[in-house]
Amino acid sequence: MTPAYLIGLDFGTESARGVLIDVATGRTEASHICAYRHGAMTISLPNGRNLPQDWALQHAPDYLEAAENLLRHLGRGRNIASIGLDFTASSPLPARSDGVPLSLLHPDAPHAYVKLWKHHAAQPWADRINAADHAFLRRYGNKTSCEWVLAKAGQLADEAPELWAQTDRFIEAGDWVVWQLTGNEVRSKCQAGYKVHYQEPENGAHVSGYPRGIIPGLVEKLAAPVAIGQQAGRLTADWRRRTGIAGEAIVAVAVIDAHAVLPAVGATESGTVVGALGTSACYMLLDRQFNYIAGIEGAVLDGSIPGLWCYEAGQAAFGDVLAWFIRAFPHGVDEAASFAYYDRAAATLPATGERPVALDWWNGCRTPIGDPALSGLLIGMTLRTTAVDIYRSLMESLCFGARQIIECFNAGGASVKRVILTSGVAERNALLMQMMADILGRPVEVPSIVHASATGAAIHGAVAAGIVGDFRSGARLFGAKEAKIYSPDTVAGPYYFNRYRQYLALVRDRQVIDTMHALSHAKADITEDQIAPARRLQAM
Amino acid sequence: MTPAYLIGLDFGTESARGVLIDVATGRTEASHICAYRHGAMTISLPNGRNLPQDWALQHAPDYLEAAENLLRHLGRGRNIASIGLDFTASSPLPARSDGVPLSLLHPDAPHAYVKLWKHHAAQPWADRINAADHAFLRRYGNKTSCEWVLAKAGQLADEAPELWAQTDRFIEAGDWVVWQLTGNEVRSKCQAGYKVHYQEPENGAHVSGYPRGIIPGLVEKLAAPVAIGQQAGRLTADWRRRTGIAGEAIVAVAVIDAHAVLPAVGATESGTVVGALGTSACYMLLDRQFNYIAGIEGAVLDGSIPGLWCYEAGQAAFGDVLAWFIRAFPHGVDEAASFAYYDRAAATLPATGERPVALDWWNGCRTPIGDPALSGLLIGMTLRTTAVDIYRSLMESLCFGARQIIECFNAGGASVKRVILTSGVAERNALLMQMMADILGRPVEVPSIVHASATGAAIHGAVAAGIVGDFRSGARLFGAKEAKIYSPDTVAGPYYFNRYRQYLALVRDRQVIDTMHALSHAKADITEDQIAPARRLQAM
Repeated sequence: MTPAYLIGLDFGTESARGVLIDVATGRTEASHICAYRHGAMTISLPNGRNLPQDWALQHAPDYLEAAENLLRHLGRGRNIASIGLDFTASSPLPARSDGVPLSLLHPDAPHAYVKLWKHHAAQPWADRINAADHAFLRRYGNKTSCEWVLAKAGQLADEAPELWAQTDRFIEAGDWVVWQLTGNEVRSKCQAGYKVHYQEPENGAHVSGYPRGIIPGLVEKLAAPVAIGQQAGRLTADWRRRTGIAGEAIVAVAVIDAHAVLPAVGATESGTVVGALGTSACYMLLDRQFNYIAGIEGAVLDGSIPGLWCYEAGQAAFGDVLAWFIRAFPHGVDEAASFAYYDRAAATLPATGERPVALDWWNGCRTPIGDPALSGLLIGMTLRTTAVDIYRSLMESLCFGARQIIECFNAGGASVKRVILTSGVAERNALLMQMMADILGRPVEVPSIVHASATGAAIHGAVAAGIVGDFRSGARLFGAKEAKIYSPDTVAGPYYFNRYRQYLALVRDRQVIDTMHALSHAKADITEDQIAPARRLQAM
Repeated sequence: MTPAYLIGLDFGTESARGVLIDVATGRTEASHICAYRHGAMTISLPNGRNLPQDWALQHAPDYLEAAENLLRHLGRGRNIASIGLDFTASSPLPARSDGVPLSLLHPDAPHAYVKLWKHHAAQPWADRINAADHAFLRRYGNKTSCEWVLAKAGQLADEAPELWAQTDRFIEAGDWVVWQLTGNEVRSKCQAGYKVHYQEPENGAHVSGYPRGIIPGLVEKLAAPVAIGQQAGRLTADWRRRTGIAGEAIVAVAVIDAHAVLPAVGATESGTVVGALGTSACYMLLDRQFNYIAGIEGAVLDGSIPGLWCYEAGQAAFGDVLAWFIRAFPHGVDEAASFAYYDRAAATLPATGERPVALDWWNGCRTPIGDPALSGLLIGMTLRTTAVDIYRSLMESLCFGARQIIECFNAGGASVKRVILTSGVAERNALLMQMMADILGRPVEVPSIVHASATGAAIHGAVAAGIVGDFRSGARLFGAKEAKIYSPDTVAGPYYFNRYRQYLALVRDRQVIDTMHALSHAKADITEDQIAPARRLQAM
């Protein structure tokens, strides 16, 4: 009999990657990557028209081109049992009821394109929504983000009302690709829950369904969501012809890329936290219970693992903080050499030495403050402080930020029993992971897995197609097979604990926050009332 | 007639330098430098005996060797009208009543040597004195320093009572050298006023003379002080023979090196501030009036310019902060190349750009807080911040610190009319001086002068010998002949003013201070009560 395979597709910011997994052995037999033709458009449209600051768009046909390339490369002539796919989110696009993206009809209109997750120009709409006290935001730390659907829809509706009138569907790019592959418009509850605040009346939620009356006309443009692990449909005849794929080729409901990681690293049980440590860090807590947890970004039932709530929290910069340091203060012929130098040198420092303390807010603070205008801080430099001391202080601050998030979970009523950290950084940087264990004061697991999101997407497909009975089985068969365990050091622990208290005291210091705001708003455009006191000063 | 010359000698930390000035032309005809044989001893005594941490000693005969070298080199066969000399302070030594330093009698005893200004091991004695509310400290910001005579005498008396019993004179090294050159023990009112809190009952001072009852036996070991600009005596026959010097060779009362700068840069009038910007920065304000000014280090009448009070304040690190940055993050083949790169790059940044704000406390804060345990701070870093941004933020913080000091002077009742900044850094770094003008909101003068302290010392000699009638004339004839003037920019001013407000808010933020203290005290020696909460945390 022909061996059967799973395909998992992971649509990232600049490219998509795919894995091919043998159902019988659970082994990844192949992987492939395909960059988007137009990448992330932050400067101009494909026709050369310039974009304003803070815009970030994508071209929907790029996804289909990448999907076709990956499916053909991995699946041609093979018996493909299922296809799962994960996507960056929120990356919504306006489309007609037949699925045609408005960008094909209005290629000169920026608002007709996909607004990529990191499109930040919708911030004023988020601010306006957050100024009111909406009950539907209670499960989302009382805030919507400018990266999510409400703000992006608001900007589109206000700035391009004629396009908004033509928008039959305002749909996540992931759901749109599923629609193209299957012919069925199936909206993912994962994306709807985290990015449009969709919720069901569980455990005393104050609202149900999509939030109404916020953005005129929006709810009518959103399909009812379906839980993850369900079938969206079979791959269409047209796609089979274009890719050469044989077999059932059941396509699963889409899932957000960070959440796809959960089954791939074996996180399917209540009490588990998974930290996906990339340029930023996303921490997902699975819990049987619902609690209102302060400072988190969102909590969704059935959006990540069926039957469990998944709470999401994050650090707006993680690897980006260390990459910033390497860029600002290189020490080697390239980034890799600089990282190697600093990582090695930082590991030779005594764990309990005299060093600055940092706040890890180089890109703002996501959890618990939820304020993109915050910035980085270093305190405690002396004439003896070295570059490596500062690098190590930055590493520490990343771990302090992680600890604060886990304390938020516990303070909100959850009970964290297990911490899994995953990413290339996590697998490579033993010092950082040991610091995580020391600073979290608990063992930390780092699974060995190369394409975590794509593998997780493949497990979604396997569950949807009934190849495995549930995510737990899928994780066991197709997920990471081994993990490295870091145990907390009892000498370093108390040292870090004292420093973490300083970190927390600075987090709670109003003046620190006020100064960061003042610096964030300081621009070259100086107003008259600022000039007046300065003139007085010159008469000093 | 044989032309007459002035000699000025400047005794620094590692070496002494001298200048030879032609009385008729006012021109500097020669200069010479001589390193001390034993330098600053921070590791071991001349016999190899190790020193504890924070000790810094000197060997008194090194000064005489350097003096002989310089006087012979500059003065041999010449008609030397006068010799003035300045010295680092406080650098006291124990001596017999005949002038023999105890280190010649007890070469194995660390306490028998000169305690160099930067000997910091007497901090506990300073702390003990400062714990009481002494009236004699009111003119000194209510604090004595571990670098000054009371603390150093206290340490000697407590740790080596047998040596203290043999100490007939506890004398500043500068006064001791004058004694050796002239045969007369003449204590400088400049050194006595700033470093032993000697004061006369002017304008409501609460005490008079040297403070009594603080260190047992100290006052008996101190000669009554003499105002600067007076004769200490003529160079002895023995010194004339050894150096070949001819002429009157009147030796002036010694002066502290920083204060010698005043006449050399033309600062002889009330309302003038001179900032001597070295590794650290010392700001001296001349004022006709006496005021109790909070946050300053000391105010002495007749100690710097006769008839005027001179208020002293400072930044514990100035050039050292930039040198730290260069050391931590080099960008060139050596320090000079790194400085050149960063200075040039910083000058190309827009004056009013988005940048972090820093507190300039890498070596603690002298004025206004007087706390050596404070440390550096940087706030406002984003992923866009560059190394050059940070360098420029550090430059700004040095200017903010200077402005805060001038505001202290004015808030205390003085009226600053003129600001002169001097040093190699001041003459080289046009960007830093422009920032000073912009941030102080007033013109800044930077005189052109190579050996400012030694030239000032020579002017002291000229006044003492009656070659000029007063310091004003001395400054005009022998001091700097020209100055560069930096005028404040009206666009940059308001921008810096806003940032200075952030600087001040951080200076006044209790949490920032508390965290710096916590980090300063954090050591590897972890106590049980620190381990207990950490253990609780591990059970989290």
